Amino acid sequence: MAHVTRIKVRGYHLDLYGHVNNARYLEFLEEGRWSWVEERGDLAGFMKGGYGFSVVNININYRRPAFLGDELEILTSLKSLGNRSGVVRQVVRMAGTDTVVAEADVTFVVVSAKTGRAVPLEGEVRGLLAGLEADRSGEG
Amino acid sequence: MAHVTRIKVRGYHLDLYGHVNNARYLEFLEEGRWSWVEERGDLAGFMKGGYGFSVVNININYRRPAFLGDELEILTSLKSLGNRSGVVRQVVRMAGTDTVVAEADVTFVVVSAKTGRAVPLEGEVRGLLAGLEADRSGEG
Amino acid sequence: MAHVTRIKVRGYHLDLYGHVNNARYLEFLEEGRWSWVEERGDLAGFMKGGYGFSVVNININYRRPAFLGDELEILTSLKSLGNRSGVVRQVVRMAGTDTVVAEADVTFVVVSAKTGRAVPLEGEVRGLLAGLEADRSGEG
Amino acid sequence: MAHVTRIKVRGYHLDLYGHVNNARYLEFLEEGRWSWVEERGDLAGFMKGGYGFSVVNININYRRPAFLGDELEILTSLKSLGNRSGVVRQVVRMAGTDTVVAEADVTFVVVSAKTGRAVPLEGEVRGLLAGLEADRSGEG
Repeated sequence: MAHVTRIKVRGYHLDLYGHVNNARYLEFLEEGRWSWVEERGDLAGFMKGGYGFSVVNININYRRPAFLGDELEILTSLKSLGNRSGVVRQVVRMAGTDTVVAEADVTFVVVSAKTGRAVPLEGEVRGLLAGLEADRSGEG
Repeated sequence: MAHVTRIKVRGYHLDLYGHVNNARYLEFLEEGRWSWVEERGDLAGFMKGGYGFSVVNININYRRPAFLGDELEILTSLKSLGNRSGVVRQVVRMAGTDTVVAEADVTFVVVSAKTGRAVPLEGEVRGLLAGLEADRSGEG
Repeated sequence: MAHVTRIKVRGYHLDLYGHVNNARYLEFLEEGRWSWVEERGDLAGFMKGGYGFSVVNININYRRPAFLGDELEILTSLKSLGNRSGVVRQVVRMAGTDTVVAEADVTFVVVSAKTGRAVPLEGEVRGLLAGLEADRSGEG
Repeated sequence: MAHVTRIKVRGYHLDLYGHVNNARYLEFLEEGRWSWVEERGDLAGFMKGGYGFSVVNININYRRPAFLGDELEILTSLKSLGNRSGVVRQVVRMAGTDTVVAEADVTFVVVSAKTGRAVPLEGEVRGLLAGLEADRSGEG
């Protein structure tokens, strides 16, 4: 089951065309990921270990516009986890429906604050990701 | 030759880690596209014809972080133009160098304000895109 | 009693110094006002009547920084309502405490979409503001 | 003479009503202040000395909306400098005209990174502010 974060579209989210701006969706997705990691992951362990997430690619499809007052759900789950990077699957849809507004694959690495470099996703680090990995899912 | 827009990294562009936030890059890219269309395209013709651009996909790679005071160049050019959609190639690099900070393919359609639907990129619409098409380039 | 909206500080809210950026607080305040008007006001009546709120002044004090993970409450209430403008009082504080992070007076007028001009806050318009006026309070 | 920064209004600056959003103006003002300090101040000396600016109050009047394509000038100058705080005067106007879009007084203190506390604006710190002080002006 994907983690769900809810956001209501406000006037300051909109742009020229009266729908949510492209860049703003990336903040919605980031909100979803923070909420997901907080609930299912080991954020404290990550910080204590001196690790951080670093996004290396976002591939986002904008399916249909969202307007003022729309209630959105951001569904977040782990799509895959390799030795060097993982992919988070995120779907933005109209709350309580199957209508997809946007969907994205977000590829991340784990960076050591000490070296500033990506670390292999094994050993201690893999352990810190276990909670998210248990959450792996198909399509949100 | 790609169109070039320059942006200097300020404190309000940064996030938790002291580097430019992922979502902010999408605003940098949008700034680059507006500037490009304004200079090379026929924005007046577009508006007069009741057409607008609508982004349907952004695929962005984050190559290395940008920090306070960094001077960035956004290079924008047309990568391809089909019958239903086009792809804009955008590269963010450290000004005056070949160091790539981020790079993105931005896929767009042209929407008619009257119908709210994507229109074929032919006839009048294709003509309005001619200035951008002349600007087609390899890799920025 | 002031209306309360809760926001948790995320990485994308922060700036150079690791605390919530000045401009972002204005989005927090706007979120609070939308939520307040939605709950206590007559937003449907406003839109039906062709009216909109327009902010003419914001006077905000930044009392102490907010950091990653802080849970904030935005308290929103009507401070005063004159014949031409009103003042919304908003206080951002650490959730469940009296610690004030920021506080603002937001002065607004009501604008007619037809004329684009501010209208007197009387008659029909005053009636639409009744729900908010009932909510007038001292200090949030 | 006030320092001048130019910004062109883009689609992502706008909100629900098709004009520049209230919060976005604070980013425009911050852009103006960074540019001003960079040109007239001693940013390097500030950072070397472990000092930073901290905004404690912003009082902004929104005079008239700005729309897509408008070219704006942000005029920035020092309004006053006391022993504990200073006030920066910023005016946003339509480029090349006297038409004021917004105007703000921004009150700041200087904070020591070591102590996290505001320091008196005297001695070494006052010296670092000399370039900005020379720039003091009436109304931009």
